[in-house]
Amino acid sequence: MKKTVGTQSFILPSRPRIVSSAAFVGRKEGEGPLGSKFDKICLDDTLGLDSWEQAESHMLEGAVRCALEKINRTPNDIDFFMGGDLLSQIISAGFAARELQSPFIGMYGACSTMAESLIIASMLTDGGFSRLAVCGASSHFSSSEREFRYPLEMGTQSSPTSQRTVTGSGAVAIASVDNNINEAVFSSIVISGGTVGRVCDYGITDASNMGAAMAPAASSTICANLMENSINPQYYDRIITGDLGSFGSEMLYELCKLKGYEISGVHMDCGMTIFSPQQKVMCGGSGCGCCASVLSSEILPMLEAGKLNRILFVATGALLSPLSSLQGESIPSIAHAVVIERNVK
Amino acid sequence: MKKTVGTQSFILPSRPRIVSSAAFVGRKEGEGPLGSKFDKICLDDTLGLDSWEQAESHMLEGAVRCALEKINRTPNDIDFFMGGDLLSQIISAGFAARELQSPFIGMYGACSTMAESLIIASMLTDGGFSRLAVCGASSHFSSSEREFRYPLEMGTQSSPTSQRTVTGSGAVAIASVDNNINEAVFSSIVISGGTVGRVCDYGITDASNMGAAMAPAASSTICANLMENSINPQYYDRIITGDLGSFGSEMLYELCKLKGYEISGVHMDCGMTIFSPQQKVMCGGSGCGCCASVLSSEILPMLEAGKLNRILFVATGALLSPLSSLQGESIPSIAHAVVIERNVK
Repeated sequence: MKKTVGTQSFILPSRPRIVSSAAFVGRKEGEGPLGSKFDKICLDDTLGLDSWEQAESHMLEGAVRCALEKINRTPNDIDFFMGGDLLSQIISAGFAARELQSPFIGMYGACSTMAESLIIASMLTDGGFSRLAVCGASSHFSSSEREFRYPLEMGTQSSPTSQRTVTGSGAVAIASVDNNINEAVFSSIVISGGTVGRVCDYGITDASNMGAAMAPAASSTICANLMENSINPQYYDRIITGDLGSFGSEMLYELCKLKGYEISGVHMDCGMTIFSPQQKVMCGGSGCGCCASVLSSEILPMLEAGKLNRILFVATGALLSPLSSLQGESIPSIAHAVVIERNVK
Repeated sequence: MKKTVGTQSFILPSRPRIVSSAAFVGRKEGEGPLGSKFDKICLDDTLGLDSWEQAESHMLEGAVRCALEKINRTPNDIDFFMGGDLLSQIISAGFAARELQSPFIGMYGACSTMAESLIIASMLTDGGFSRLAVCGASSHFSSSEREFRYPLEMGTQSSPTSQRTVTGSGAVAIASVDNNINEAVFSSIVISGGTVGRVCDYGITDASNMGAAMAPAASSTICANLMENSINPQYYDRIITGDLGSFGSEMLYELCKLKGYEISGVHMDCGMTIFSPQQKVMCGGSGCGCCASVLSSEILPMLEAGKLNRILFVATGALLSPLSSLQGESIPSIAHAVVIERNVK
């Protein structure tokens, strides 16, 4: 059976199941509109550890363990832990993998990492290489600010187009159809396909305007998905981007319109969902942990409850580094998408 | 058909083909024992560009294009470009992907990235998601030194256990069995299986002793491969590690002996092959580009020529970051392995 559609899209004939998920977040995220839905809210952003980086890694490890505990499994039972984060050399994921001791595939797609990992995990599952895999991604406001922008101690003012990096982690467990997990948190959620991203670069150089840098990638991948599958945006109950924020989302609508698609009616952005406007986060949340935690705690439960039946989950990543910015490079971006459905029997 | 063996190993029933490869390296690598085998030797380590980082990205892009040109294909013809490098946020690969415009999966496994990418690309090929994919990895002496150790301008003396990061890139093209590539550079080389690594950490904290940090990971993955497949080291004509260097290789022999395997007779290390002792590189070469370029230019042609029939290619990665080292963390490591065979018809 042909599994590729066009040049970027694919289908997963065996429809791998999403059987569990978990999210650990920070205090500010816990005070937001989704506060009651997260598995754990960490009031101290170091978790009592020596550094924010250690805390971030610990939150990622915690989300993975929590997602597995819900289905009565341990890290020993999984074929793959795959994922990443925003820090140099993805240390949050690497150190989490050291503790978990599962076979580990490190991924880097900046804030697109969760969708990138879901694509690879579901392909490996469909291909017969995994019976149970966990995808995870994390970010941390304080570790990210000093990695990409300024030391927090400087008290630098945020620009109007900036977004606040989410302190949080999300983990999603994917099982093959023949892996009968009786304790599954989600009884009927499957990944049925998706679209692999290409890198886009419209020449944006402002590292405080990630929404603008990433909107072209989101538009490219969404339109490729719609075109290659010959569907319209309403095929999905929601097209859910990771962290474009309010400014980037407006740009996305315009860019999609240029290609003949009106998506504003079905669009939702995790970065605009995790914080309320009263929380003063400028254009919204961002970071690997943003869409990972919103997917785990809000979107998957909505699918399970039948409030949504089919979504396109599109995570976008800005492929800059602090060094590439200093060297005057523009910000290349990528977006990866997966189709997540409620399996109606 | 069952494709997993034990908890970390796998087989690829369709035996995806390696159809082409290419390597671009720097001047010092060109002056080494493999000098005549590389596709391009870049005499100026900036390639005339503004930075070493730009040069590294350009070398990676060049190797990918070159591997494709050899089989009369372009980046438009591939289903996936996957790979990475050592720099923060894998900018070499990200910026190369921007130029190539192929669907891109960014990977991070430090110096294990080439093997990690070969595992995922061959699984996606076997699973029916890719007809032609290119795996690529790169490193650059000058960009790595300032990323991980000291600015070159300081003229810091190398420690006796140090290794020299290879300036180089390698790219390997993987085709599905039904993709009939008449122009294939290699007519009979296949990937038949492999072993996915777990993170090991023996508490090494010296970032100038990567061999010692990575040897436990190499031993763990090699022994898992031998044990799970119930084979002995002589099953392979060579067990080829990426960049353990002379010190790390000695440690590897000892660690394998503890588990009952004597591998020194069949072992080869790319880091000890790419430079000669006269080149004063202490324990040998290292970096993502080391095993990627040696695989592309030396090992695959040896397989094609029948000088080798079956190898275990084991690339090891040290999952540290400059920040994790400064924070006093030890160096976690991982090794991924693929079985590459000559298909005897």
